[in-house]
Amino acid sequence: MGQLHLSNTMQIASSIAEMRELRRQLPEPVGFVPTMGFLHEGHLSLVRRARAENKSVVASIFVNPTQFGPNDDFEAYPRDEERDLAQLEAENTDVILMPQPSEMYPVDASSWVVVEGLTDGLEGAARPGHFRGVTTIVAKLFNIVEPTRSYFGQKDAQQALVIQKMAKDLNMNLEVIVCPTVREPDGLAMSSRNVYLNPDERRSALVLNESLKLAQQLFDDGERDAGLIKRKMREMIEREPKSEIDYISIADTSTLAELDRIEDGALVSLVVKIGKPRLLDNVILGGPA
Amino acid sequence: MGQLHLSNTMQIASSIAEMRELRRQLPEPVGFVPTMGFLHEGHLSLVRRARAENKSVVASIFVNPTQFGPNDDFEAYPRDEERDLAQLEAENTDVILMPQPSEMYPVDASSWVVVEGLTDGLEGAARPGHFRGVTTIVAKLFNIVEPTRSYFGQKDAQQALVIQKMAKDLNMNLEVIVCPTVREPDGLAMSSRNVYLNPDERRSALVLNESLKLAQQLFDDGERDAGLIKRKMREMIEREPKSEIDYISIADTSTLAELDRIEDGALVSLVVKIGKPRLLDNVILGGPA
Repeated sequence: MGQLHLSNTMQIASSIAEMRELRRQLPEPVGFVPTMGFLHEGHLSLVRRARAENKSVVASIFVNPTQFGPNDDFEAYPRDEERDLAQLEAENTDVILMPQPSEMYPVDASSWVVVEGLTDGLEGAARPGHFRGVTTIVAKLFNIVEPTRSYFGQKDAQQALVIQKMAKDLNMNLEVIVCPTVREPDGLAMSSRNVYLNPDERRSALVLNESLKLAQQLFDDGERDAGLIKRKMREMIEREPKSEIDYISIADTSTLAELDRIEDGALVSLVVKIGKPRLLDNVILGGPA
Repeated sequence: MGQLHLSNTMQIASSIAEMRELRRQLPEPVGFVPTMGFLHEGHLSLVRRARAENKSVVASIFVNPTQFGPNDDFEAYPRDEERDLAQLEAENTDVILMPQPSEMYPVDASSWVVVEGLTDGLEGAARPGHFRGVTTIVAKLFNIVEPTRSYFGQKDAQQALVIQKMAKDLNMNLEVIVCPTVREPDGLAMSSRNVYLNPDERRSALVLNESLKLAQQLFDDGERDAGLIKRKMREMIEREPKSEIDYISIADTSTLAELDRIEDGALVSLVVKIGKPRLLDNVILGGPA
């Protein structure tokens, strides 16, 4: 750790006991940004927001095995601890929690937090068990860090809704704040998985954001037929030879029920496989930006 | 409430917001006793233990609908709020949480806490969904009350183990303490459901404790064959005409795996229907009393 030139103020907790001890000393309120590391501007925007709204900021880095399925990229998930720590230090993070997998999941662990309904479709349908892993690890991290506020990105729109629902249903004593998606200058939503893209795929990946802009344009021009908007998005994406559509969804912004017709607003979300990675993106139509 | 002659110090929170507000003012540490009301000496022993070990004591009274099955006695579950409050006041309880069912379970609530494995057998097998209701309400109450320690009775042995497992697996920042079963002078384990027993049934109900004493006697005499001990218990109970055995179990004290042979220790638990109610009782052989 000596080579990282950490400031005196940033502390690293590598066990739950260390985190609890540091937590007792942190001035309230405490903002918390849970991550799986390999940080990009999207994560850092959450840390900055936490920094602006709280006296103390905690971030966690933990690649959570229980949210990856057997065919997912758990082993290959990109990691760069040194760079992550330097970036978090630059944002004046107070404490980084980097727990050991064996402490987070002892061999006999058998308790889960589940959110029903909201997790049935979209990523929940595409990745069985994924959200059970997400809600369980986030509940555990909330219990360890005991934050006043916690910050998540709109890029993972369903995840953000699911975590808000979990916190509300289970009366967790904290606020779950969802922050706007951060994009590359050319519009690609930032994601740790973008590192998997070769230059050709990187260019093709722009079609996700382009198709969402098309949906926004059609909506702004008065189109309310969700089927028609999805069809036009699909046509645009299929023109991109390296793309493989997983799903395109236009759904109610709070229940995620698929819509035939857009009334007040809608969450337009899609997953497209470009080369190896499944890329996610979304836009909210007719709601607060 | 004016007729209850509550002291100035005991406060009643009938909403989550009121509880959180009162919680902020309570001196630490805070002991918590969650109950479904209709209190007896068993509950009060938990309150006394909480009183002895903490600066502040919170109790809750909430008949939790999600832990009752469609054929269970939710509607008929005995209630006596006035008596409960007077008893809790006499034990110097600081705050009573009596939340509204509609606030605890809004119509769209869809999040659950589940403990797998430990909940498969015994009461989990007899009452499908029961433990999911228990762990969910207890997690919610823990999040609302944020206690330092929480107290449960050994009479519901599986429930106590399941809640300890939940708290450990999900890193809840509190201690779950299990207290000895309190019995009537003639040995019947105290239970709110004992009120269902008519005088004949009340006499028959003694057979639960008698059969556990038989198991203890056999064990003390060197018997280690779990099947034989269960058979002798069964013979004794079947001699009682009003009894209907639901199950007799001799299981590992931490995993609840059924044992053929007792090595270090065992949880002997049984459920017998006497008239209307299912009565539970248990004893730990070879372990700490």
